Amino acid sequence: MTAGDAQELLDRCDELAAISASATGIERVYLSAQHAQAHARAAEWMAEAGMAVRQDAAGNLVGRLEGSAPGLPALLIGSHLDTVPDAGRYDGILGVLAAIAVMGRLASRSGTLPFAVEVVAFGDEEGTRFGTTLLGSAAVAGAWREEWWGLTDRDGVTLREAFERFGLDPARVGEASREGEIFAYLETHIEQGPRLEDLGLPLGVVTGIAAARRMSLTFHGEARHCATPYDRRHDALLGAAEAVVAIERTARSLGAMATVGRMEVAPGAVNVIPGTATLSLDLRAETDAERDAALDAILDRLTAICAERGLTLERQDTHCAAAVLCDARLQAAIGEAVGSSGADGGAGAVPRLFSVAGHDAMAVAGIAPVGMTFVRCEGGISHHADEAVTLADVEVAIDALERTVEVLASAQASSSPSSW
Amino acid sequence: MTAGDAQELLDRCDELAAISASATGIERVYLSAQHAQAHARAAEWMAEAGMAVRQDAAGNLVGRLEGSAPGLPALLIGSHLDTVPDAGRYDGILGVLAAIAVMGRLASRSGTLPFAVEVVAFGDEEGTRFGTTLLGSAAVAGAWREEWWGLTDRDGVTLREAFERFGLDPARVGEASREGEIFAYLETHIEQGPRLEDLGLPLGVVTGIAAARRMSLTFHGEARHCATPYDRRHDALLGAAEAVVAIERTARSLGAMATVGRMEVAPGAVNVIPGTATLSLDLRAETDAERDAALDAILDRLTAICAERGLTLERQDTHCAAAVLCDARLQAAIGEAVGSSGADGGAGAVPRLFSVAGHDAMAVAGIAPVGMTFVRCEGGISHHADEAVTLADVEVAIDALERTVEVLASAQASSSPSSW
Repeated sequence: MTAGDAQELLDRCDELAAISASATGIERVYLSAQHAQAHARAAEWMAEAGMAVRQDAAGNLVGRLEGSAPGLPALLIGSHLDTVPDAGRYDGILGVLAAIAVMGRLASRSGTLPFAVEVVAFGDEEGTRFGTTLLGSAAVAGAWREEWWGLTDRDGVTLREAFERFGLDPARVGEASREGEIFAYLETHIEQGPRLEDLGLPLGVVTGIAAARRMSLTFHGEARHCATPYDRRHDALLGAAEAVVAIERTARSLGAMATVGRMEVAPGAVNVIPGTATLSLDLRAETDAERDAALDAILDRLTAICAERGLTLERQDTHCAAAVLCDARLQAAIGEAVGSSGADGGAGAVPRLFSVAGHDAMAVAGIAPVGMTFVRCEGGISHHADEAVTLADVEVAIDALERTVEVLASAQASSSPSSW
Repeated sequence: MTAGDAQELLDRCDELAAISASATGIERVYLSAQHAQAHARAAEWMAEAGMAVRQDAAGNLVGRLEGSAPGLPALLIGSHLDTVPDAGRYDGILGVLAAIAVMGRLASRSGTLPFAVEVVAFGDEEGTRFGTTLLGSAAVAGAWREEWWGLTDRDGVTLREAFERFGLDPARVGEASREGEIFAYLETHIEQGPRLEDLGLPLGVVTGIAAARRMSLTFHGEARHCATPYDRRHDALLGAAEAVVAIERTARSLGAMATVGRMEVAPGAVNVIPGTATLSLDLRAETDAERDAALDAILDRLTAICAERGLTLERQDTHCAAAVLCDARLQAAIGEAVGSSGADGGAGAVPRLFSVAGHDAMAVAGIAPVGMTFVRCEGGISHHADEAVTLADVEVAIDALERTVEVLASAQASSSPSSW
């Protein structure tokens, strides 16, 4: 263990936090000046750690340490450096910097491992700028979509224009794909939930990433003067308000995570009964079946609410993602590494958690088995300036990631990369 | 009875409906080109009905018929010609045109009535343009406030600038006051509710105008990533949603009318738990005491909701109006007139209703006793293109207004104006 590595990692998080488009919080989005600046700094750290560094065709940063022979399939380790608006300083960043810290320790063994090791800093995971998440990791997974070129940011700049202004060639984005070159992907990330904190443990093995659906639900009623008696009202907001309460109750009872983050009401006058109310629903569960069962139950309740109030319901699906399972052998390797680092609290049982939030691993899972480690974060807070981790936890996180590489190297020595 | 007057009134409503700032609905706001155009047409109708017509210092239109001597105190009859956005064609307009129709019938008796009769078309009742209602009638009531000059419309034009562009002199607005010159005010208005329709009767006597309060209520929670477990959430929207439901239930049980017309949520991202949610509350009741009792009960419930969810509540009062009682003798005169017009369904009992909506009579009540007559409207609908009245109801409304003037003239002949 090297406490110095952990302190250096936290110092680097602070340094990157200062690279922001906003004077009042952290905001660093895809293909921005801040993206270039943060990646340039990370490239220096990668080079110092002994890696050969390059920017890929989608603006991701990649550092490579060759294995026992040049050109071996790579163990890819990383996360993202982009942020949401008013972000914390660890979401994504911690995983990239932990990988760089581990590479610094592995550098002396360059040319001896049974695989290459690469560190990747994805340019877009959050989707803040163009509204579509995982652009960076999708490029690496060879899953770039032609229709994305027309996506625009809030200033009307298209993704294509942003590529060109960043010095990238849209025609060459396919070259970012690493299909067939990666035998496994590892990602260390803050938990974004309080379960590890509740357990009193610093690390957990991620079993998978939640199935998710997003949709817009519009309640249509009748906009009327507020003098209209109650029994003549068809108040769209009242239906939507009952829906918000019913969504929480129903999802919670079925073990799903539901969030209503948006609500818009029209016409929006103080003395006019709302004629329409639109809310967003973000629904997640450990499996696709659990997610869909929760949705069915929610829609049943909403239909009943509309019937009671004489409203109609309009549904527009905006996103649907299947659950991504972490690879069983990678889970076992991470579990072994975490356990031997003493981060299981000595109880011998390493916590296994599923991730409610999405991660780059979802995209990379399209081309390679993925494994993830969660790091305890204070109060489960993320996407907020209050995001916090401890020095001690970062120390065991770096150690566990290093040990995971060792466990995989031992396993790899006695099998073939293709068996992964 | 003259069915021709009623048909002419409906035709005039249609003609004014075409004077709109919007191509898709009716919108005619204070001190706009449409205001000027509608008042110019109404001025022609007033002149045809035998009135001396003038625009007052606040842009209201006034037509006068002298009584048995020049300069007698006036019976003022009217309503407003401005509208909300996407308005109906009768709210306000019906009352102005009914007064003009009655004046046409009274013209031949010019110089014989024991008082002058004036028709007023107020330029602003709805408050659509500057957000503050009753500007026109407040000027007539001598209740203009200096702070109103700084009010702005959605284009940033101040009320002072709008006055000047309309050709009015802000320094002379006080000249619009009619304090001491009006002995009573009568207003005919569509009901904006379905009680007359439910009773199967065309007209009702208004007993008063509801006490009202408006406020903004903000629920403060914590904006967090949607991966946050339920028991760690402080979801401001969930608190606000429970509040919307509780407000309806509580107000309804106490006989008050509550409307939540606005709801704004921040930060408003699909995958972020709302940190704040702000709603508007419009609360009305027949008396100030009933209104305040309902508010107390609502705030008790909201405080409990906030305690359960770990939220805080911020309240900002934006409006408070005491109930306005219609004058007992004017109510009696209107009741007698309505009864003798046969509009009581032959049952001899004229319905008495209080008004949930605000009216110009609220402002005029500051300088004179007021009386109001409600006209049945289809489905209780107002502030909407579907606003509708029948020819037969308009006919009895004109007749009843004419008879009310007669009743007052008889009473006045045997008393002094100052006794009102």
